[in-house]
Amino acid sequence: MKPRIGVIGPSQASTSEYKIAEDVGNEIALRDAIVICGGMGGVMEAVSKGAKEQNGLVVGILPGDTSGAANKYVDIPIVTGFGQGRNIIVASSSEAIIAIGGSFGTLSEISFALRLKIPVIGINTWNVSEQIIKAENPHEAVSKAFSLISHSNTTGMRHKKA
Amino acid sequence: MKPRIGVIGPSQASTSEYKIAEDVGNEIALRDAIVICGGMGGVMEAVSKGAKEQNGLVVGILPGDTSGAANKYVDIPIVTGFGQGRNIIVASSSEAIIAIGGSFGTLSEISFALRLKIPVIGINTWNVSEQIIKAENPHEAVSKAFSLISHSNTTGMRHKKA
Amino acid sequence: MKPRIGVIGPSQASTSEYKIAEDVGNEIALRDAIVICGGMGGVMEAVSKGAKEQNGLVVGILPGDTSGAANKYVDIPIVTGFGQGRNIIVASSSEAIIAIGGSFGTLSEISFALRLKIPVIGINTWNVSEQIIKAENPHEAVSKAFSLISHSNTTGMRHKKA
Amino acid sequence: MKPRIGVIGPSQASTSEYKIAEDVGNEIALRDAIVICGGMGGVMEAVSKGAKEQNGLVVGILPGDTSGAANKYVDIPIVTGFGQGRNIIVASSSEAIIAIGGSFGTLSEISFALRLKIPVIGINTWNVSEQIIKAENPHEAVSKAFSLISHSNTTGMRHKKA
Repeated sequence: MKPRIGVIGPSQASTSEYKIAEDVGNEIALRDAIVICGGMGGVMEAVSKGAKEQNGLVVGILPGDTSGAANKYVDIPIVTGFGQGRNIIVASSSEAIIAIGGSFGTLSEISFALRLKIPVIGINTWNVSEQIIKAENPHEAVSKAFSLISHSNTTGMRHKKA
Repeated sequence: MKPRIGVIGPSQASTSEYKIAEDVGNEIALRDAIVICGGMGGVMEAVSKGAKEQNGLVVGILPGDTSGAANKYVDIPIVTGFGQGRNIIVASSSEAIIAIGGSFGTLSEISFALRLKIPVIGINTWNVSEQIIKAENPHEAVSKAFSLISHSNTTGMRHKKA
Repeated sequence: MKPRIGVIGPSQASTSEYKIAEDVGNEIALRDAIVICGGMGGVMEAVSKGAKEQNGLVVGILPGDTSGAANKYVDIPIVTGFGQGRNIIVASSSEAIIAIGGSFGTLSEISFALRLKIPVIGINTWNVSEQIIKAENPHEAVSKAFSLISHSNTTGMRHKKA
Repeated sequence: MKPRIGVIGPSQASTSEYKIAEDVGNEIALRDAIVICGGMGGVMEAVSKGAKEQNGLVVGILPGDTSGAANKYVDIPIVTGFGQGRNIIVASSSEAIIAIGGSFGTLSEISFALRLKIPVIGINTWNVSEQIIKAENPHEAVSKAFSLISHSNTTGMRHKKA
C-alpha cells in the first residue's frame, strides 16, 4: 500500500499558497505516495495539479453528491454528499496531514487529525497546538510528513520529470 | 419552534467546567429553549443535567450506533453511528453555540459553527477567531446566545424551580 | 425517556398514504411517544401534522444544511447536511419503524433498520423480508410498534383531543 | 479519469459468490477500471483479490475509523468512521454498480444507487426493481456495466496476465 498524505487548505488560495501546494503535490508524487485532498479548488486544486505534473495519484474526497465539481486533476473522486461533514474523512484517510494556510474548514480538519493522533505539518496555518509541526517550505513539509509515517515503500524517491 | 442552543465542551470536564455547564443548562431551560449537545459525558452531561433540573428538553447527538451510551439526562438520543463525524450535526442543528473549555473535538465544532456562520459564545475556550464572543459566566453566555438569535418565543423567562 | 417511533415513506405521498401517515402520527402522539422522521414533505409531513394535532413531539432529521426546508410541523430539526446519508440516522434513532408506501429512499431506511435489528412494521410498503411485520391500518401499525419495544412509560394512553 | 465500478455484496460470502466476485474483479481490472468497494471481507475481499490478480486498483470505503480492518488487497483505504453510513458513499462514488448476492447492507446500497440513478447490474441479488439489470455471469455483468457508462478510455482491454 502506498503512503497517503493528506493536504488541506482553503478553496480560495492566495498566489503564494497555490504555489506552495503545487510544490507539495510535486514532492509527494516524486516519493510515490498518494495525495488525499478535498478535491475542490484553491489549495486542493494546486496540490492535485502538482501531483499530476509528476504522474502522481490524487484522491479527492468531495463534499457534493456528484463527481462533477472535482478539480480536473483528481484521479479518484470519492463522492460523499456530506458537505463539510466530509472533512473528517479527509483527515482519517491520511497517514499524515500537511496544512497550508487556513480557513475554518481547514481548522476543522486539523482538529480531527489532532484528535485522531494523525501527525499534522503546518505551513503558515492555524497555530492551535504545539502538536502541529511547523515547516518553512514544501520540501521540509513533505520530508517531515514522511519521517512521521512508517512504510516500507516510502524511502525510494522517483526520478523527477524534466 | 423553540430555540435550540448547542452546548459543547470536553467529555472529560474539570469541576469548574462541569459547574459552568450545569448552570448554562439551567439558564437555557429557564428560557424554554432546547439544549443540543453531543449526549455523552463531561460538559455534555453537565449541561444535560442542568437543563433537566429546570424541566428542560435535551437532545443528545450521539457518536455511537446505539442510544446506550447517552448520559442519563438526555431526552432525545439521535443515534448517528458517525463517530466524531457527528460533530458537524451538533453545530449545524444549533442556532447558537456556547463553548465551555475545549478539546480538539470542541475545536472541530467551533470551526464548523464559524464556517456555517452560527454564533459562538465562549467561556474559557479556544481563542481562534475574533468572531467568538467571550462570556465570563453562564448567565452572560446564555443571555448573549439568546440576543443573537431571533425567535418570537425567546423573550419569556419561565419561573425558576425552587 | 419517551419511546421514539420512526415513520418513513416517500416525500411524494398519495392522498391515501398521506391520510394513513397522519393517523399514525395521531396515534403515536396519543401514546405520548416521539415521532422521528426525515422532516420533509409527503409521508414525513403527514406524520408530523398528525402528531402535532395531538400535541405530540416531532423530530425531523433533515438532509439539507439548514432547518429551512423542514415541514412546518417539525419541533426539533436535526440539520445533518448529509443528504440521503441521513437515512441511516432516521433508522438508528428509532426504537421501531413504521414504513408507509415506499420509494428507494424508504427502502434504504428499511434495509438499515433490518440490519440494525430494529423492528419494522409496514403498511403497503416494500416486501423484501419476512422480518417486516405487516399492518392493515394505522392503529394496528402503532399497536404493533409499541408491543415490540419495551418501555416503562409506553403503556399509558393520553386522552384524545376532541 | 478511469471508470469506477462499484462492486457490492455480503461480508459473509458463499464459495460461489466469492468466485463470482473474484472474476468480476479480474474483468474490471483487465478493462483498466477502478474497483470501488466497502473494503472488508466476503464479496468485498473477493473482488479486491480479483482486481489485484490483474494489477487493478482497489478503493475500499471503510466503515471503521482506522485502515486496519481493510482486506489485504485494498490499495486505497478511505477511512470514514461512519459505520454502515458509508454505504451511500460506495454507491455515489461508482459510475455503475455490480451487486452479487445480498445482505441488508447490500440492499441499502442498491437502494441508494437506484435513487441516485446509478446503473445497477445484479447477479443473484435483490429483485426489488425492474431497473436492476440482470446478469448471469461475471463477464456479462462487467460488459453490461461498461456499456452503461460513457468514458473515452473504457473501450480498451488490457492483455490478460498469464
